[in-house]
Amino acid sequence: MEVLKQRILAEGKNLGRGILKIDSFLNHRLDAGLMVAMGEEIARRFADDRVTLILTAEVSGIAPALTAGYALGVPVVYARKHKPITMKEPVYIETAPSHTKGGETHLMVSPEFIHETDRILIVDDFLASGKTLHALARIVQHAGAELVGIACVVEKTFEGGRAFLADLNVRIEALATIVSLENGGIQFADSAPTARAVADSTDGRLA
Amino acid sequence: MEVLKQRILAEGKNLGRGILKIDSFLNHRLDAGLMVAMGEEIARRFADDRVTLILTAEVSGIAPALTAGYALGVPVVYARKHKPITMKEPVYIETAPSHTKGGETHLMVSPEFIHETDRILIVDDFLASGKTLHALARIVQHAGAELVGIACVVEKTFEGGRAFLADLNVRIEALATIVSLENGGIQFADSAPTARAVADSTDGRLA
Repeated sequence: MEVLKQRILAEGKNLGRGILKIDSFLNHRLDAGLMVAMGEEIARRFADDRVTLILTAEVSGIAPALTAGYALGVPVVYARKHKPITMKEPVYIETAPSHTKGGETHLMVSPEFIHETDRILIVDDFLASGKTLHALARIVQHAGAELVGIACVVEKTFEGGRAFLADLNVRIEALATIVSLENGGIQFADSAPTARAVADSTDGRLA
Repeated sequence: MEVLKQRILAEGKNLGRGILKIDSFLNHRLDAGLMVAMGEEIARRFADDRVTLILTAEVSGIAPALTAGYALGVPVVYARKHKPITMKEPVYIETAPSHTKGGETHLMVSPEFIHETDRILIVDDFLASGKTLHALARIVQHAGAELVGIACVVEKTFEGGRAFLADLNVRIEALATIVSLENGGIQFADSAPTARAVADSTDGRLA
């Protein structure tokens, strides 16, 4: 997705050790118009998969999952990492490494909102090690639902997430694919098969 | 907002002690179409206020803030409660009571994304005690920006949030106003001045 790559090049900050900061439109400040365009692109790539539900994890997955859910006309469930006081009944629970605290974080989903008849698309901001996405996929399995694919905004191929997710045997789509963050640069995959230019966007409404 | 009130009546769960669970379309599962309609309604109520930025707090504020931001054509910043590894520079920080852990939670916003020229609308899911919203307003003050209003999806008047926020001297809008959760019921304000019926929505696209 060319507009996304250009924004990453213009605003992404390579912090070293494989860490890319995209706080200006994805992880702290949200560019609403770009977020809608990304949701529409995710929806386009899974338009024929009869998706009934999008599953993501709080926090940074919520925005692209919501816009993809709107474009596909399906609801979105976000796994909770911190049990709210309203969560009293049994939940599906899995663990994944914590990006903020070190150690592990729990991912909790209420069985009320995920059914064995569901065809589920998992959406998240980053595909890095794949461990959070795999934890979400295990929740799909616990519910007896069908996982039809995984979509992420940014993939960092050098963290090996695709290999880690290979046992799931589903299609994985990334809107931007980064193959290297070495030497302070940001190097994208030459031409991802599904990459294509889309209309430019600025904050808010699409241009 | 009549469609919201009807959904709260149909799906909201009064857990007692003033706690209303709206997990089926607001706080765990998201109804994307209703979320877009709510964002448009928030935008309509602040259409003349020259808003330049929407500020919210993770987690449950993100969805209505994003759809309101899209409708107003402005970016959204969500205060982080857990410092991500990419947050290295100084931040504006305030504290508010934690709804999930007890004690206090931190709200952190990067000065990079909030400027003294901004005209800021704060959006969140609930207005209860008002303490989270007040903490966000203090961040706006730290940045020297102008707070033009506060919008929430659901107000629980009996928790006194409006009085707590009175010193901010800004307009506060709620899409649904609940005056009592006593005796297991859900009682709305008779007729809020700005309440009006809108087109019905189902999951995903607006009907």
